[in-house]
Amino acid sequence: MPKPVSIILDWGTSSLRAALVSETGETLDTQDTTSGGIQFVKDGAFEAALMETVGSWFASHGPLPVIASGMITSRNGWIEVPYVDAPAGLAELAAGTKQLTLQNGATVTFLPGMRDPAAKPFPDVMRGEETQIVGFGLNKDCTVVLPGTHSKWARVEGGRIAGFQTYATGEVFSLLTKHSFIAKALEPAPGAEPVWSAFDLGAEFAASDARAADAFLSAVFSARTGVLAGVLKAEDIGDYVSGLVIGSEFRQARAAGWLIPGEAIGIVGNNVLNSRYGRVAPLFNLTVIPSPADAAKRGVQLIAGQLQLTK
Amino acid sequence: MPKPVSIILDWGTSSLRAALVSETGETLDTQDTTSGGIQFVKDGAFEAALMETVGSWFASHGPLPVIASGMITSRNGWIEVPYVDAPAGLAELAAGTKQLTLQNGATVTFLPGMRDPAAKPFPDVMRGEETQIVGFGLNKDCTVVLPGTHSKWARVEGGRIAGFQTYATGEVFSLLTKHSFIAKALEPAPGAEPVWSAFDLGAEFAASDARAADAFLSAVFSARTGVLAGVLKAEDIGDYVSGLVIGSEFRQARAAGWLIPGEAIGIVGNNVLNSRYGRVAPLFNLTVIPSPADAAKRGVQLIAGQLQLTK
Repeated sequence: MPKPVSIILDWGTSSLRAALVSETGETLDTQDTTSGGIQFVKDGAFEAALMETVGSWFASHGPLPVIASGMITSRNGWIEVPYVDAPAGLAELAAGTKQLTLQNGATVTFLPGMRDPAAKPFPDVMRGEETQIVGFGLNKDCTVVLPGTHSKWARVEGGRIAGFQTYATGEVFSLLTKHSFIAKALEPAPGAEPVWSAFDLGAEFAASDARAADAFLSAVFSARTGVLAGVLKAEDIGDYVSGLVIGSEFRQARAAGWLIPGEAIGIVGNNVLNSRYGRVAPLFNLTVIPSPADAAKRGVQLIAGQLQLTK
Repeated sequence: MPKPVSIILDWGTSSLRAALVSETGETLDTQDTTSGGIQFVKDGAFEAALMETVGSWFASHGPLPVIASGMITSRNGWIEVPYVDAPAGLAELAAGTKQLTLQNGATVTFLPGMRDPAAKPFPDVMRGEETQIVGFGLNKDCTVVLPGTHSKWARVEGGRIAGFQTYATGEVFSLLTKHSFIAKALEPAPGAEPVWSAFDLGAEFAASDARAADAFLSAVFSARTGVLAGVLKAEDIGDYVSGLVIGSEFRQARAAGWLIPGEAIGIVGNNVLNSRYGRVAPLFNLTVIPSPADAAKRGVQLIAGQLQLTK
């Protein structure tokens, strides 16, 4: 086995995921535990929770450096790391880390989140996505979208993250399809293929030149009028709304200046949403820059590497 | 007591509201019952439900004509009345009514809803709001908004309703403030005055020239970033989101061509929403045409009056 050189933690509210990593970035071993999730750790006993999860790695390989990201760096976590303001690149993110030393002498480095003070109407924030963007790459000016419950649209310029804005697309999709009268959807069967025809219908309307597509509050009502018109069946609603809200996210990102038709954009993440976003991009005359599957881990390593250079 | 000349029914899913009306339109008596609501009427026994509610009026005043609107005219009601297509005015709405005769000889007239076949992406529908617009008045070209769970924006032109579109603003507000992570709000105390400063903050952003205000899916995230920035308190969130979504409805109605800055618009309805909409209108350089409080009843009487002229 290659020599382990560090431990990378994705430490969130509900779980603690640890990876033992080699010098070349290879993942040699993993530990996943829900009992280490922040919400289950009592009285600030984070060090004990960490030792329970990765203590055997320390025992075998010595006090390896640990790099932690996720909600563990928030107010409710082990140590609160202030947001680094945009624009920021590797140097600023590395300078914004905080460290502490464990009883065994190992150093834990906590990565910061990012804040865009220029966002309207209030400064916007992210915690974790900036690390994925670093892992995607800062060497080429472009726009990057990170699909999710709270999607981020970010602009990479001159080797730094110039600014970003959150779109609550995933959450609005969930509200509409789970709780609304107008767009309540059937639960898809596990592993079922999306109804792409319905998805495309929603996305194509959002990308069309119809002025009504600028009216999101009206467009969502089309989940109902589409059924009344006999165009949508009950089993289509979920994917129709998915296409409509993701398409609307692109349309609104264009209106807000985050994307420029004809450009190439990055779609960063590792979940099923990426295929949906990739399907919408050409409707807005965008090509997609391939993203590494392990952007998050790469980002952590790049920031950690930068840190060693500067200390 | 003035002589009763007709009975007007607002007959919905959950209740039946009846009014005994004089020639001058005065309401002489009312009967409200939940047991007559469509969902409680078994085996299509609508005539029995009606007689139970207004039988004593027939006994005292003879077989007065009855005019019914509401979900009683839908597929799940007594008699399904097809939608009348826009553009339509008094003549078309009257021609679209359906009638039946009760065992006592009284005639029941059921009013139609309206459909806009030109709406995008699918034809839009309303059932009841068109009658309120008639009661508001068709004599002056203008835009009319009817605030609600599913607000309607309609254009009155040449004495007819030229077209309309639904905005699901009330429903989206409810989803965000009741079920979302980003904008879950405290339940306001009964009778409490809105936090107008928070409402205005949301509405003013929606009316601003910030390009980010065109991105509704992003703007809703400001309920969270406003708290993080220390601008919004927990008790502000509900009214902030209210101002933001109503302001966004105006902004989107402007983008979709329903309102023209500098015009006067009608705000029709009789609920507390009207004061909120009236507060937003000036932010979009709109003046408000006063609406009669009893627009719905006036509309019913106008359509019924038209019917007598043409039969």
